[in-house]
Amino acid sequence: MFKSICIIGCGLIGSSILRNVKKKKLSKKVTVFDKSTSVRRYLKRKKLCNNVSTNLKKSVLGADLVIIASPLSSYNVILKKIKDSLKVGAILTDTGSVKREINEVANKLKIDNVSWIASHPIAGTEESGPQAGDINLFKGRWCVLSPSKNSKKNDLIKLEKFWMKLGSKVKIMSFSEHDYILSLTSHLPHAIAYNLVITAIQNDKKSKKEIVKYSAGGLRDFTRIASSNPIMWKDIFLDNSENMVKILNLFTKNINKFKNAIRKGDSKKLLNIFKLTKTVREDIIRAGQDTDKPDFGRKKS
Amino acid sequence: MFKSICIIGCGLIGSSILRNVKKKKLSKKVTVFDKSTSVRRYLKRKKLCNNVSTNLKKSVLGADLVIIASPLSSYNVILKKIKDSLKVGAILTDTGSVKREINEVANKLKIDNVSWIASHPIAGTEESGPQAGDINLFKGRWCVLSPSKNSKKNDLIKLEKFWMKLGSKVKIMSFSEHDYILSLTSHLPHAIAYNLVITAIQNDKKSKKEIVKYSAGGLRDFTRIASSNPIMWKDIFLDNSENMVKILNLFTKNINKFKNAIRKGDSKKLLNIFKLTKTVREDIIRAGQDTDKPDFGRKKS
Repeated sequence: MFKSICIIGCGLIGSSILRNVKKKKLSKKVTVFDKSTSVRRYLKRKKLCNNVSTNLKKSVLGADLVIIASPLSSYNVILKKIKDSLKVGAILTDTGSVKREINEVANKLKIDNVSWIASHPIAGTEESGPQAGDINLFKGRWCVLSPSKNSKKNDLIKLEKFWMKLGSKVKIMSFSEHDYILSLTSHLPHAIAYNLVITAIQNDKKSKKEIVKYSAGGLRDFTRIASSNPIMWKDIFLDNSENMVKILNLFTKNINKFKNAIRKGDSKKLLNIFKLTKTVREDIIRAGQDTDKPDFGRKKS
Repeated sequence: MFKSICIIGCGLIGSSILRNVKKKKLSKKVTVFDKSTSVRRYLKRKKLCNNVSTNLKKSVLGADLVIIASPLSSYNVILKKIKDSLKVGAILTDTGSVKREINEVANKLKIDNVSWIASHPIAGTEESGPQAGDINLFKGRWCVLSPSKNSKKNDLIKLEKFWMKLGSKVKIMSFSEHDYILSLTSHLPHAIAYNLVITAIQNDKKSKKEIVKYSAGGLRDFTRIASSNPIMWKDIFLDNSENMVKILNLFTKNINKFKNAIRKGDSKKLLNIFKLTKTVREDIIRAGQDTDKPDFGRKKS
């Protein structure tokens, strides 16, 4: 499919792409850049990649597809370093969870001689690092592509096919549409999970221990979300700060209304909320995004 | 173990108890009261219980163990009706998620000639009704018992053994300790899940559709929690209103601090929060309350 692919940053997402490219033979050559010695050692030991580079500029030379799969806060430095080494006409993409600000960085740096198309595979687990990668990570999951003013139409089709080979379903969105939708479906849930866990542990030592013990009643599921990669999430909230501040304000307003309904003993208002949220669940199951099987909680195996 | 057990209300929890009592032969006789015709029909059709009663007073006659497994808001009416029919010296328990207010109701009604001991099996799914019941529902899960001023020590031991036969691990707590711990581990997570879903769908039709489509990034897991039984949760929030208002205030304060950190671009503060919440997750896994296996999202089967 490609002659040469370069993956910059080989954690959970990067290594899952790598596993697919290798197994499905999507490129004759693959080069991986990662600044971490232990990641490079892991890739060599597991024979996941023969061309592991420590030189960012050299790693992208001649690549038809360059995938940045490192934290959002590293993009600026990476783009500055590679911009003059990129093959003219190559496809440049990423895997980040926020898009608008990155596109502005790309515009400022005048990355004009390649097809810059942002990718966001909506897939992942709470784990990090290349050992957490999985060949089936993208299977059946959405990948959002956002073309820039420099994207060629054929390249967009080619990149779409690439993600489909990885098992993804592809959707095209503008940069700002992507950031708004994701602020609601992913960034707000994560922000709330972090704050819930913080609130639950603002307690004396004894209560804290009890809270951990009885966490199966709801808290447990939030701690999973609140244990995702810290650097990645710090970057997401800061890059999507405008949307985040807006929806956190809206969310706080809803919480206050809810609190007042509890304080006043307003059964009717509470029931209306719960009935409405139940229908959203039904919509999600109908859209094939979750199963309707009850969740009894996962057991330690 | 008992000569005669009466279960009042046979939904998810009640029918899971019933399945255990029947299979493990924990009582010579079991009587079930449920006001719903379809529930009674289901129990008879599935041969889960021979003695299905429509007369509350009669159903408790001669029972050594009476278990109220109906919504919290029905307790007052039920207790008033059964109080003079309860066998002297019987054990009276329940399965509700809030305790302090119920105990006050029992005190007011002067239910003194039985051992009133509250039970709270911390187990369940987002499903409701007797068809959702499962013999393994309580297996490995905590059940909190709260003795009242009328509980006899031997009866507490007997009830503890009963729950252990159902597979539960048992913990004794006071009424108010139970309500405080549960407000953090279960009631706050549910309150937040409902409000998150409400916030996410305050949108035009097109965005709402997109939000459902891309819900795998976090929102999906909250909609599961936010689809639990509406009446049960309305009752929980109202019965535990004092704790709820306090912790919702604390939670809102944390959200505001978080929002300000995003607004100011305070990376250090955000990273500190995320590192702290990651340790709570590790505590929960260490306490055997969840698995450390990554969650790729459940697939429709």
